[in-house]
Amino acid sequence: MDTERIRKDFPILSRTMSDKPLVYLDNGATTLKPQPVIDAVVNYYTYLGANAHRGDYEMSAQVDAAYEGCRKKVADYLHATSSKEIIFNSGSSEGLNQVALMVCQQLLKPGDVILSDESEHASSILPWMQAAKQKGCKIEYIPLDEEGKITVENFKKAVHENVKVVCLAQVSNVLGFEAPVKEIAKIAHQNDMLVVVDGAQSTPHIDIDVQDLDVDFFVFSAHKMCGPTGVGVLYGKKALLDKLEPIYYGGESNARFNSCGDLILKETPLKYESGTQPIEGVLGLGAAIDYIQAIGKEAIHAYELELKSYFVQKVKELKTIHLYNENAQSGICTFNVFDQGQMIPAQDVASFLNTKGIAVRSGTHCAKMLVDVLKVSGTCRASFYFYNKKEEIDQLVAALQEATLENCINIFF
Amino acid sequence: MDTERIRKDFPILSRTMSDKPLVYLDNGATTLKPQPVIDAVVNYYTYLGANAHRGDYEMSAQVDAAYEGCRKKVADYLHATSSKEIIFNSGSSEGLNQVALMVCQQLLKPGDVILSDESEHASSILPWMQAAKQKGCKIEYIPLDEEGKITVENFKKAVHENVKVVCLAQVSNVLGFEAPVKEIAKIAHQNDMLVVVDGAQSTPHIDIDVQDLDVDFFVFSAHKMCGPTGVGVLYGKKALLDKLEPIYYGGESNARFNSCGDLILKETPLKYESGTQPIEGVLGLGAAIDYIQAIGKEAIHAYELELKSYFVQKVKELKTIHLYNENAQSGICTFNVFDQGQMIPAQDVASFLNTKGIAVRSGTHCAKMLVDVLKVSGTCRASFYFYNKKEEIDQLVAALQEATLENCINIFF
Repeated sequence: MDTERIRKDFPILSRTMSDKPLVYLDNGATTLKPQPVIDAVVNYYTYLGANAHRGDYEMSAQVDAAYEGCRKKVADYLHATSSKEIIFNSGSSEGLNQVALMVCQQLLKPGDVILSDESEHASSILPWMQAAKQKGCKIEYIPLDEEGKITVENFKKAVHENVKVVCLAQVSNVLGFEAPVKEIAKIAHQNDMLVVVDGAQSTPHIDIDVQDLDVDFFVFSAHKMCGPTGVGVLYGKKALLDKLEPIYYGGESNARFNSCGDLILKETPLKYESGTQPIEGVLGLGAAIDYIQAIGKEAIHAYELELKSYFVQKVKELKTIHLYNENAQSGICTFNVFDQGQMIPAQDVASFLNTKGIAVRSGTHCAKMLVDVLKVSGTCRASFYFYNKKEEIDQLVAALQEATLENCINIFF
Repeated sequence: MDTERIRKDFPILSRTMSDKPLVYLDNGATTLKPQPVIDAVVNYYTYLGANAHRGDYEMSAQVDAAYEGCRKKVADYLHATSSKEIIFNSGSSEGLNQVALMVCQQLLKPGDVILSDESEHASSILPWMQAAKQKGCKIEYIPLDEEGKITVENFKKAVHENVKVVCLAQVSNVLGFEAPVKEIAKIAHQNDMLVVVDGAQSTPHIDIDVQDLDVDFFVFSAHKMCGPTGVGVLYGKKALLDKLEPIYYGGESNARFNSCGDLILKETPLKYESGTQPIEGVLGLGAAIDYIQAIGKEAIHAYELELKSYFVQKVKELKTIHLYNENAQSGICTFNVFDQGQMIPAQDVASFLNTKGIAVRSGTHCAKMLVDVLKVSGTCRASFYFYNKKEEIDQLVAALQEATLENCINIFF
């Protein structure tokens, strides 16, 4: 990984934080943007400019071509069978809400069970909890193993005849473990279950093949993979998308309607895209995909693991750090810092790291059920991406060495 | 209006279309972006960079301050009582869907009536049609007058004791008439009705005072007022927002939850903002508001009316143009072109104008029920904004003079 060359593409890396060079290790929350993504967004503002799917003039046709070109790019990126399986929306959270509401309202019956797990992000579990409540369905959880992982064995044990859906993150946003999605999907389909996967933390890092995984629905957000905020993707198998009705209605998703309430929707995917779409967001996502593919997912993932190993080895020497996910095969490192046997509140550690120019996340990371599993009130999470470098990990480790109870409190005065 | 100076702020105005200088008259569909809006978006990518409401580091706090600063700006722009009444979302269509679903599911009972009208945009009426169907409610229509306007008299006639909601656009996207929202809201509230207003076509052009209008919900989109796509606003009266439950759930909108499904939401507006928000979109919207306010809404509206009068006077001389909304007090001009008494299909006229570098919209403009009222299959719509100039109208009129049946067909060969 030619990190030095890559870092030149990210203008934000020349900024400082707390008067120190920025060390950005919060890539699980959102990622930085390379110049080609910025250029794609600016090109919409300075050249393309029109709305999509609406005009009879050249600018409008150019927007349509660019927008639909990105749909094709996403389809290829996910190895979907066709662009018709790709729905643009505002992000993973919307995608998971759309699926939970559509599936619960239109496919499930009262008493049906949705299987999930306690390491899920709020956006992956709350939509199901709420949609299930409305329909009289039930949520059950695949027990996590002692490390907090989802295993095929535990999944098998949790399946029973009332389970109709399994929904889970491919990569946990706190522990970074990759769930055995392909194996789970195989068993799920043998039991007539639908498989819904939150790909927010996997799509930026590992190759995704929705056909090989054989998932029914899959979502991800552009902003976690160098793209803009406010745009994401819902992949769905075409037969399911054809069968279901959208949650939202409006302009451009319908072929015709009248005052009696008769409504003919357009075909998928357009029937799911009501109103003006996040056009420059979609174009930025397209540029992000190009950028990531030019580096290569395999190289990205291998490099993230290299960074993680480097961090793991360093913190083992420290002895004041408790790392919760040493074995997770991702760039996510979740830990707490101890001083004289006492845990320093994660937020205090994060605030201390900020004084060194280092951005990590602290708290429950939106996975609030995991608190009960890990038996801590919160953790620090350093999450690496391909533009991070070993020197930054050295800086993190050096700062963590200084992170005593006293130093972490003193920053506030 | 110093149009020449203003036009320098819009980089896209230097582009050509069909090898002619661009004449962009499709502002009802979306608007062009001035440099300060582009700069605000780029500043997020090159400087701010972090997610909102999530981090314990300086960059993150800077994003929060900028994001919440925009919320305050929107509150002031709409004359809301507080920022807590401002919810960011992906645009007017989402806002109207949110309100229709929340109101129908949580406040109405079967048999209740929602009052709308046949000039509504699909995004303003379809959400209600669908949500009403689910709940067993009914849609009724305020009869339009002979010009296609909503009048207080007709509204009064349409009100009866089962009507619980009135939903309408403040300015029609096809005819450009401004509905008497304040008078309607007064009568509506005397009859215990909720008032939901689609401000997509009004907010960019006229001063909006939600307190003076006394509306319960109001939506608009950033992209129709020089801001980014993929971002919009739902205003709601605080008491209503406090009472209602959101449609979507996920990260950052909750205070806590557990595996039993117990959920404590954050207070409004955050409880309505699940998942990562369109951050650079919100910042771009803030810059758009600053830009528009520096010019002044009154000046903008007066100038749009001046452009419209100029167009009206010119087309009257032509005699081949049928204008449907001469009296509408807005920059929207909806017309058809006739040749030897025969109407030229609107799409053919728009395609012909494209060859002259002129962008107008043709078709039903998403207001498909209006076709029955106007008794034509479609219309051309030229919609002006403050950066348009009289010379562009001269070009439009000159092109329309050439728009014969033969010329409109010949462009395809």
